Amino acid sequence: MERSLVEPFYVMRVLEKAKEIEKEGKEVIHLEIGEPDLPVPKRVKEKAKEFLSRFEQKYTESAGIYPLREEIARYYCETYQVEVEPENVVITPGSSPGLLAVLKVVSERIGQISYSDPGYPCYKNMLNLLFSEGRAVPVSPESSFKVLPQQVETPALIVNSPSNPTGVVYTLEELKALSEKAFLVSDEIYHGLTYFERAPSVLEVTDRCVVVNGFSKFFLMTGWRLGWLILPDELVSDVTAILQNTVISPSTLSQYSALACFEKEVLEELRSNVEVFKERREVLLKGLKEVGFKVPSEPQGAFYVYADVSDFTEDSFSFAFELLEKVGVAVTPGRDFGYNRTNEFIRFSFCTSVENIEKALERLYSYLR
Amino acid sequence: MERSLVEPFYVMRVLEKAKEIEKEGKEVIHLEIGEPDLPVPKRVKEKAKEFLSRFEQKYTESAGIYPLREEIARYYCETYQVEVEPENVVITPGSSPGLLAVLKVVSERIGQISYSDPGYPCYKNMLNLLFSEGRAVPVSPESSFKVLPQQVETPALIVNSPSNPTGVVYTLEELKALSEKAFLVSDEIYHGLTYFERAPSVLEVTDRCVVVNGFSKFFLMTGWRLGWLILPDELVSDVTAILQNTVISPSTLSQYSALACFEKEVLEELRSNVEVFKERREVLLKGLKEVGFKVPSEPQGAFYVYADVSDFTEDSFSFAFELLEKVGVAVTPGRDFGYNRTNEFIRFSFCTSVENIEKALERLYSYLR
Repeated sequence: MERSLVEPFYVMRVLEKAKEIEKEGKEVIHLEIGEPDLPVPKRVKEKAKEFLSRFEQKYTESAGIYPLREEIARYYCETYQVEVEPENVVITPGSSPGLLAVLKVVSERIGQISYSDPGYPCYKNMLNLLFSEGRAVPVSPESSFKVLPQQVETPALIVNSPSNPTGVVYTLEELKALSEKAFLVSDEIYHGLTYFERAPSVLEVTDRCVVVNGFSKFFLMTGWRLGWLILPDELVSDVTAILQNTVISPSTLSQYSALACFEKEVLEELRSNVEVFKERREVLLKGLKEVGFKVPSEPQGAFYVYADVSDFTEDSFSFAFELLEKVGVAVTPGRDFGYNRTNEFIRFSFCTSVENIEKALERLYSYLR
Repeated sequence: MERSLVEPFYVMRVLEKAKEIEKEGKEVIHLEIGEPDLPVPKRVKEKAKEFLSRFEQKYTESAGIYPLREEIARYYCETYQVEVEPENVVITPGSSPGLLAVLKVVSERIGQISYSDPGYPCYKNMLNLLFSEGRAVPVSPESSFKVLPQQVETPALIVNSPSNPTGVVYTLEELKALSEKAFLVSDEIYHGLTYFERAPSVLEVTDRCVVVNGFSKFFLMTGWRLGWLILPDELVSDVTAILQNTVISPSTLSQYSALACFEKEVLEELRSNVEVFKERREVLLKGLKEVGFKVPSEPQGAFYVYADVSDFTEDSFSFAFELLEKVGVAVTPGRDFGYNRTNEFIRFSFCTSVENIEKALERLYSYLR
């Protein structure tokens, strides 16, 4: 058969290779995975067990259980001082199916959608899936990998702040300027994970927007598959109808368990995790520079360092495999994030212990210096 | 805004109205919902609690955990005497997202897809979502609502046996004849719930097919959101790449818990439930005829009776609301299943107790006779 319909995640090939190497009994340090390694708060598990003991898991409303929609609305009011009604919150089985529904509705109702290159690969892939031609906006180290207002030429734009793979955080003023050029689809999945200033929500600058968010990063509920959308009134019914048809409803257990995330003590625990990631970030950044990689834009949020490896290779894809095979360090090649000079970059994630990060850095140093 | 992008489930309007009536303190008997009311096997819950106590829920492979793929492959060998490799089984978060990925790949790789009218509404809606124009095949009581080989004019066809809303079961010969006309996408979600002959799988007659199935009907794991696909070799990577992009991976907890479904005692328990549904079916069928509804094709499987109400109304949609308002019986209007004489039909589900079914029948009788 001809080429694949939708581009796979190239990092999966790295993962496969890593597994082979591990099968041979060799240790691989995983700096490729964008999945927090910390355990989910105990209260979330307790709530899950309680629900399992007392109730059956039936379908819920497609938009999700009302108490969770209320908690999320309240969380936005408290975190961003913006008013959100529970009716504008729609719960999704992970942020991905929500994003797919939103991209469909926005491209039909509002128009063509731009996204940054490099950027999260699913934006392009989902638009392809929907036969909706998006437009890639090349972003460069010179603008800290941010989309500039003058680059926006379509009615809609995906903003991802803190961003994958660069960890860049847009300021309130930058979001405001972008919102004046386009309807914003704001992927805020890394919110809560910032190391200096908090990341503003697009809701603070405009109502002409959709927020995509979920429980898999700051809230650590990865495999529970739960996310949410915040939608303007006029898009709620279209998006909900698509979710009804494509997923029916999110996991009932995950929804009830997630209620625990908004308890005061749990939120405090989650917020204290940021320090853990911050320490890792510092160790990784320092070490990568010592190895000789350049980091033109240091991450302000999320848990990735997007490093320029052009002093070592012209092809970061094969370089990723070289590092894996020679020193057992798994990383994500830039190619996963688009076409714009992505052959010069590699993404390192810091979802593993400082000890592991240091070990990886030592191996890289010995091999490359 | 203009009309909705994707048709909603009209039954949701019935549900909303039912909730209003219930808020007024009146009792509604729910014969509209296609969700089994029986509790999930105890072993499934035990397995869930055990997993919660011992492990974190991380992402799994997009295709699902290998032990579950193995169990499903083995289940097909035992149930249908067909050979299925675990590599051809892909786990999905409910059957819906799996179906969406399959419809995308089949319409691109194989060609236009037909589906029966009346039929499950998501077939048409998902194809619309993907901008892939499907073709409705009108099926009539005269052919027991089955698609006939001579009606198939497209390279691919969705077969749903036992079917929603009619409960019709295709024979091995009928499946064989259809498979000679088109690539089959076989929605086997109601397999296991048959009242006379077992429903043959399309895998028994051809390899040029995809099977869509899940844990929400026979296995009773509705709100756990878990399904699976069985794919020919050449479609596995395309479908998996789409799932990677649109859902990442299915719920980790649901996957591990579902392993319990294939334990011998659990399967026996699930098989014994069929008698429960069979009794309800008989009570409902007999009662509906006494009320004066015609049932041109009695269900051989699934848990629905598709009844002809044309002696009472020319518009089964408003008739559904009339029944709800006048006697507190909630049903699904034919309109949810397509355009082919659906104004003459109503779907009654038997996902509630015999006691409730009898009460609903008495109310209908008093009101309509």
